[in-house]
Formats: sequence, structure tokens, C-alpha cells
Amino acid sequence: MLKEIQGGICAAKGFTANGVHCGVRKNKTKRDLALIYSETLASAAAVYTKNLVKGAPLTVTKNHIANGKAQAVICNSGNANTCNANGIEIAEETCKLLGKELGINPTDVIVASTGVIGQPLDITPIANGIAPLVSGLGAHSDFACEGIMTTDIKPKEIAFEFTAGGKTCRIGGIAKGSGMIHPNMATMLVFVTTDCNISVEMLQKALSKDVEDSFNMVSVDGDTSTNDMVSVLANGLAGNEEITTENADFKAFQEALSAVTTYLCRMIAGDGEGATKLLECKVCGAKDTATAKIVAKSVICSSLFKAAMFGADANWGRVLCAIGYSGADVDVNKVGVSFRSKKGTITVCENGAGVPFSEEKAKEILLENEIEVLITLGDGNGKATAWGCDLTYDYVKINGDYRT
Amino acid sequence: MLKEIQGGICAAKGFTANGVHCGVRKNKTKRDLALIYSETLASAAAVYTKNLVKGAPLTVTKNHIANGKAQAVICNSGNANTCNANGIEIAEETCKLLGKELGINPTDVIVASTGVIGQPLDITPIANGIAPLVSGLGAHSDFACEGIMTTDIKPKEIAFEFTAGGKTCRIGGIAKGSGMIHPNMATMLVFVTTDCNISVEMLQKALSKDVEDSFNMVSVDGDTSTNDMVSVLANGLAGNEEITTENADFKAFQEALSAVTTYLCRMIAGDGEGATKLLECKVCGAKDTATAKIVAKSVICSSLFKAAMFGADANWGRVLCAIGYSGADVDVNKVGVSFRSKKGTITVCENGAGVPFSEEKAKEILLENEIEVLITLGDGNGKATAWGCDLTYDYVKINGDYRT
Repeated sequence: MLKEIQGGICAAKGFTANGVHCGVRKNKTKRDLALIYSETLASAAAVYTKNLVKGAPLTVTKNHIANGKAQAVICNSGNANTCNANGIEIAEETCKLLGKELGINPTDVIVASTGVIGQPLDITPIANGIAPLVSGLGAHSDFACEGIMTTDIKPKEIAFEFTAGGKTCRIGGIAKGSGMIHPNMATMLVFVTTDCNISVEMLQKALSKDVEDSFNMVSVDGDTSTNDMVSVLANGLAGNEEITTENADFKAFQEALSAVTTYLCRMIAGDGEGATKLLECKVCGAKDTATAKIVAKSVICSSLFKAAMFGADANWGRVLCAIGYSGADVDVNKVGVSFRSKKGTITVCENGAGVPFSEEKAKEILLENEIEVLITLGDGNGKATAWGCDLTYDYVKINGDYRT
Repeated sequence: MLKEIQGGICAAKGFTANGVHCGVRKNKTKRDLALIYSETLASAAAVYTKNLVKGAPLTVTKNHIANGKAQAVICNSGNANTCNANGIEIAEETCKLLGKELGINPTDVIVASTGVIGQPLDITPIANGIAPLVSGLGAHSDFACEGIMTTDIKPKEIAFEFTAGGKTCRIGGIAKGSGMIHPNMATMLVFVTTDCNISVEMLQKALSKDVEDSFNMVSVDGDTSTNDMVSVLANGLAGNEEITTENADFKAFQEALSAVTTYLCRMIAGDGEGATKLLECKVCGAKDTATAKIVAKSVICSSLFKAAMFGADANWGRVLCAIGYSGADVDVNKVGVSFRSKKGTITVCENGAGVPFSEEKAKEILLENEIEVLITLGDGNGKATAWGCDLTYDYVKINGDYRT
């Protein structure tokens, strides 16, 4: 049984967090340095961006968790520490300073950075920020959540309770991500904590499988970031018998992890840069899952479709067009399209051709801020869901002059 | 010797054209039906969209020029005649009516439509428009050019003179295309006419090769249209010896064709929906041409890069990011990036890392309306050019409510 609970990344036993303003960003009202800490050494798993241009922190983190263990996560916003000559050095130094302050091994630290690419990251504000960051550790999931935000408007955190091995376990996560969102095998920054007792191998297996259906199915703007990372820390403090095989407990863990990641996906898409609407594209009747995924992502990535949704315009021709160029093996003469929201459902296309519908009703449905696009392919049982957002004036505004 | 001349698609001997308002569009001040006519039967070649959803006119045209011959082109704007149950019927009927009026075989007609997808196309306005369309035939390349425009702001026409077999030949073209531009083996609507005497096989060969470096390297919004088509009519009236092999005359023809298509590519990209700037991405030093093309197109398609250019922001990190996720085999530590315009050139990245530069100078360069992004990969001799435009408020405005 899955139950939503309060506490975010501090919901799981033995985890505390904090976020402070250290000065990487000039805006003093915004926290820009976040910390997550487990009172015991935890199993650690992660997935990373497939972009060839990788942030220095990712390289350092990969080395640090090669042994499957970590105890803390530190992340700054405002600067991605990517494409800088001394990036690795700065990331290592950050871990060293934090390790010293916490009294843990620097190689047990996961380090992340998010923000502008290609601007040298000064260690000074981070070095000064670490003492207050550590001294203020507590049930401050919200502070950490703010610390990792860049152009995000809404904080993104969630937690659930579930049962494994007869014990109550908790799992929670925070995410940042608003632009440059088009993950490939990993995504934006997502930090998940759990007190479930699970082996490193099974933790990595659960995470790698999960991102295929969660973060890899989100797109805000088609740009795959250089600093995408999802990491999970599992400290085992729930006291359940360690999960080491694909048993019922593993299924329960997977379900709980999926609840966290799906929630964060929807939050990330709905809070896409400039977005006014969360778009959820549900494809069914594909000949297989891979085909369904290709179709769902192609529709959710179409600039024309996204702009039509901003205008609450039931321009289903753009949905068909995006299906047609997706590269998926589809019989376009069997395609059906409907739009759904709180205000109802309207079918606009059947068998690849338009059907008469009330433009007024369509407008009413599409004026809502959560829209589902339902696509049937009539080819089999494959299905998939992708998440995105509309394309708006504000996306252009935010990205027309991001650096100043 | 290639020389730019006046006359567009009517520059070549024996070609006339016209455009009228027939009523497919409600706006009476805009011509919406275009005709191109050759006084003799011409060799015809074409390439089409790879979108699985194909406009009915493309299917009809493909059948009509299967014998390599055509004498006229008719095209309406305002309605794409795509995803309609009776689309083929309407397209065939259009050819029949035009054939009758011109006294030519209906199967010697190339038919095209552009505009909204999925709305039934009424034959009545077209049927009524054909008589004035034919009776007004003359040196009216500009009228035809207007007749095929949709959201285009600028008409796109060009012509050149060249020599083949000691004879002066002429080649000209018109294009429409502003949104839903991301061609794949073909593009938008482009009609080219020439009086050069060239076999159907060599004409198709020249065209197919040309689009790889021209229209397939343009992107406005990443959406591959359902109705893309490029066609060439060659009526041989220049009197040169027929080109049947890859000889010097063929090279001269290729060069002239490339001059026409490259000009139209730049026009299409620069007149992208809402665009304020033409972006030209030139990649060199790639290990091969394919790699250079992948990199150039990835950069030109990045929403974040496009928005930065709108803001005249030298945010080169987004260029590196787009190279990194392009899928091309590139050593990111060797990448160099410069921006160039009429105001000068500025280098912003060398060996994958930022170099100090004057933000003031960069701004001055990027405020121009034609920007070159120069990328060096340091891996070999492969090079490619791609064309695109910035992402602006007006793109969102135009596409937020296109149908009303």
C-alpha cells in the first residue's frame, strides 16, 4: 500500500537536509547551495546524461559512487561548472570541504551543479557556505529543494510510505528542471532518499528501469542538458530484510520509486520554462512499447503542437503530422486522437481523418491547465505516456536573455 | 558563369505563370491559387516529404510524373488537402479542370496544396478560379509566388543565367515555407523551372543530390511537414544539346540549381515564422560530411540556442550542449565556436572551454539580422552548412492560434 506523506527527502529515517544562500547567485533572496545527509553510509545509485558534453560534477560523482556508497549530496545552482578548464578541481574541492565539515570521507559525497554553462565557478562562496549549510541540517527538504532551483517557479518535492519485508519504508525526492529538458537515459537533477534496505545492485536496477518510463519521457524544449543526473540514496534504516532479488519487496520498492519519479516528471513538465499547461500524451494500441514511446515523445516535442496548446486550439493536424515524422512504424489511416481535461473529453480524429466536433467544447477543454492527448494506433497493445508543456511567450522571454 | 537575372520562374524560355484569389482563403487581398505553365511538355523531377502522413496532392503528383513529364503546376494555399477522406478525388478533379482549360492532358499536371491539415477542401473556389488563372498567364512569377504563400511574410523568388553546350540557359525558382519546416529528403513547396535541355534521369539525379545540401539543411521549428515537395520542370527550349551524362554541362546545371536552392533556403530560414534573424551554422573540421551535417542541424534546431540569438546573447554553452547531444562522434575538448556578422567576428570558445571575450562586442555582432555560427571540430575535413532562424514571441503568437 502506497501512501503519500509529508517530508520530501527528509521523510525517510536518518536523512536531514538544508539549503542556504552562499553567493554563487547574486540574488540574495534565493538559496543556491543544497545539502542532503544520511546519518549512516547509504547505498547509492545514479543515472547520468548521455550528452557528450558532461558537467565536471558528473565525472566526480561517477568516481565517488563507483563503490556503490555515499552519505551526502551537495548541489549548487547558478553555475553548471561545465566547459570550464578547472571544473573537476572545483568539484573535488567542494567534496573535500564538505567531507571535512561533516567528518565523512570526501569520496562519499555526490556533487552536482546546475545553471549557466561555460562560466568559471568560484569556490569561495561555496567554501563560505558549507559551515552554515551543515550547522543548519534538519528536516529542511524545502530549503534543499529551493537551493537546487534555477528557472523553476515551483518547488518539486514528494514522499511516500510503503511496506517491504513487513516494515514501513519511506521514499522521497526533490527535483529541479525547467528548461534544457529532454532527458536521455537520465535527466535534470533529481535526488531521491529512502530508508528501505536494498542492495546497491537492485537499487541501480530499479533506478535504471524506472527512468526509461519516467524522466526519459519528459521534454520541455528538446534540449538534453549537460548536467542531468538522478541519484538515489538508500540507508536501510527502515530495518527491512535487505532486498537482493526481484521479489515482492522489490516490486513494492519499484512501485514507490515510480510514484515519486512520476510525480516529479509531471511537476517538471508542468513547470517547464514559461509553461501555462502540463501536457500528458498517452499512446495506446501501438504494436509495441518502443513504438508507443516514439510516438508519444514526438507529439510532446512538436513546437507547433505545443504552441497550439498554448492557444487552446484543437489543431489535431499537428498531432498527426508529428506522428507521421516520428520515425515510428504506424498506419496513419488507423490513428485516433482525443483531447481530455477536467472539462471532459472530445474526439477530433478517427482513422486518420477529422471528425466533426464542437470547437466551443474543444476550447473549453483546452483552456484547462492539465491536458491529456489520447492517441490510439489500432496496431496492438503497446502503450506509453510522455509529459511536456506548452510553448509560450515566456519561454522565449526567459531564454532570450538568460545570462543577464 | 552564373549570373543573377530577373523573372523568377518566368525567366526561363517558354514559361509563364499567374496567381489569383479564388476564395480558398477568406482574405480577399491575398492570392491563393498559383499556376506555372510551359508552352511545351517538359521533363519533370521531384522529391517529396518523408512524413508518413502525406498530403493527397503528393500522391497524385507522384503518379502524374511517373513518366518523367509535366507541363503545368497548380497550387492552392490556405488548405493542405491532407487527412481528408476525399483528398485524392479533389486533387484529381483540380488537374482535370486545369487540363481542360489549358488543353493539355490532366496527367501532365503537378498539383500541390499548402495550409491547414485536416479540413475538407472545397473544389468550388478552385473550379471558379481556373479560368481567370489561365487567361491571365504571363510573366507573373510574383503573382504565383504570392499564391503559394501561407504565413510567409516575404515572397521568395530568384533566377540565374548559365551556359550549357554553348547556349545560354535560364533557371528560376519560387518557394513558400515559414513554419512546419524541418525537411527530410524534400521540403516545403519549391517550384523550379529551366529551359535547359536535360534528360529526366539527370534532372532527378541533380535534384536529389542538391536537396541533401540545401533544403534538408534548413529547420525553422523541427516539424517535418506533410506536404513538402520540390519539383523542377525543364522544357529544353534553350536549345543546348541534351545533358545525358555527368559532363561539364551537367556540372554547370548543378551549380545553377544549387544557386537557386541555396538562395531559397536562406530566404525560407530568414522568413521563418516570427523570425527576426537568419542563422547560418557552418561546421568545419568534422571527420566527415555526415558528422558535420548532424552537428550543424542540431545547433540550428536547438530552441535554447534560437532563443539566445533572439536575445542577441552570446550563450555559447548552448551551442556546445547541442553539439554534445547531437549524436555525432565529436571530441568535445577540441570544439571551437565563433559568431560572425557584418559587424565582425568574435571567438567565444576554444578547445571546448570558454575564452574571455567582450560582451559588448558580442552584443553588437549578434544584434545584426544575419548571424553566422562558426564551429570547428578539429577532426578532419568534413564540412556542412545549415540554416535556421531565431525563436521569438511572434512564433508563439502565429502558432498559438493559426486556424482562426
